[in-house]
Amino acid sequence: MTTLTDRLNWRYATKKMDPARIVPQDKIDRIAEAVRLAPTSSGLQPFEVLIVSNPETRARLRAAAMDQAQVTEASHLMVFAAWDNYTDARIDDVARRTAETRGVPLEGVAEYYNRLKGVYLQRPAEVNYHHAARQAYIAFGLALTAAAFEEVDATPMEGFDPDAVDEILGLRAQGLRAVTLLPLGYRAETGDWLNGLAKVRRSRADLVRELA
Amino acid sequence: MTTLTDRLNWRYATKKMDPARIVPQDKIDRIAEAVRLAPTSSGLQPFEVLIVSNPETRARLRAAAMDQAQVTEASHLMVFAAWDNYTDARIDDVARRTAETRGVPLEGVAEYYNRLKGVYLQRPAEVNYHHAARQAYIAFGLALTAAAFEEVDATPMEGFDPDAVDEILGLRAQGLRAVTLLPLGYRAETGDWLNGLAKVRRSRADLVRELA
Repeated sequence: MTTLTDRLNWRYATKKMDPARIVPQDKIDRIAEAVRLAPTSSGLQPFEVLIVSNPETRARLRAAAMDQAQVTEASHLMVFAAWDNYTDARIDDVARRTAETRGVPLEGVAEYYNRLKGVYLQRPAEVNYHHAARQAYIAFGLALTAAAFEEVDATPMEGFDPDAVDEILGLRAQGLRAVTLLPLGYRAETGDWLNGLAKVRRSRADLVRELA
Repeated sequence: MTTLTDRLNWRYATKKMDPARIVPQDKIDRIAEAVRLAPTSSGLQPFEVLIVSNPETRARLRAAAMDQAQVTEASHLMVFAAWDNYTDARIDDVARRTAETRGVPLEGVAEYYNRLKGVYLQRPAEVNYHHAARQAYIAFGLALTAAAFEEVDATPMEGFDPDAVDEILGLRAQGLRAVTLLPLGYRAETGDWLNGLAKVRRSRADLVRELA
């Protein structure tokens, strides 16, 4: 049986993708489904994921990402973009969906979401953005885990100019801010310096401590 | 075959745990291993996970976590605590481990980590803490995914007073700040209002958009 541990040991931050190999749509769909199912604070899902295919846009993103080749050479490029703030309309949308999905009247869930608004809507946008970004990281982790289950290589990336990526994709006008990139594809047979190198991790005792 | 999608559909933020049921150690070990294998920016793993068993400590944590019963009634309680800052010593430790694990001289990796220090050590502690916290969220997401594979229930939790939790566990003196809690255990047979309710999520089209 394939275990989660096996898949996490298999994956690595692929440094060179084979541009000739395309990830099939059903694998992309299952990776997207992991993003969709990722838990988030109060179920707000305060982010979007954009899959960018236009080659010119990809080239511009690569320039904004320290010229990392995977940005253009990967089969697919996911951009995780967090909400820039919480708003009345965004929280209302979650309340409406919750009531609809569970077949209860909106009034039945209103109190909970009104309480959330009372907390979130008075905080500075920057605080809410940081909170939203953290939720996006949960989904980001699940996406790269899903990729590993699909035997799809991925490169989790923070090394880019977020303002430039926001500008290239017009994210700010949509109330979004880029937080991570995730090129998806297949490792090149040669030329990836990291492929085959031992994974470096802290020891269990150092990282996870049992307190008496 | 058990798929990741199946496991993510199975899990939910358990609201009532059965305090009589204890998670076996081998399951805890595999959840901890997912934390350990989680990818992080530059491989820094800038967090620790504490497993708290002392009942008095758990009671104090529950009081700091809006009296959420899972904090004391779950079998195990994981506390994810991010580094409060990046430091010379912390980055040196990663450099040393990388050289040792890969059997290369420290000088062979020094340039990379010196460049990291050049960026991180001049930033305000708060910026570095936010960066570290995001990495902890990747591991947090993998931990709750690992729990789902183990058929262990979990409650991802942000609803607590971080300063109070830091104080109860003496985290600040260790250069750590609590970011999330993860009670692990087994759902109570009755009394969990969320058990069996439909999962609420945005549609695929709304959440993951393919740009032309």
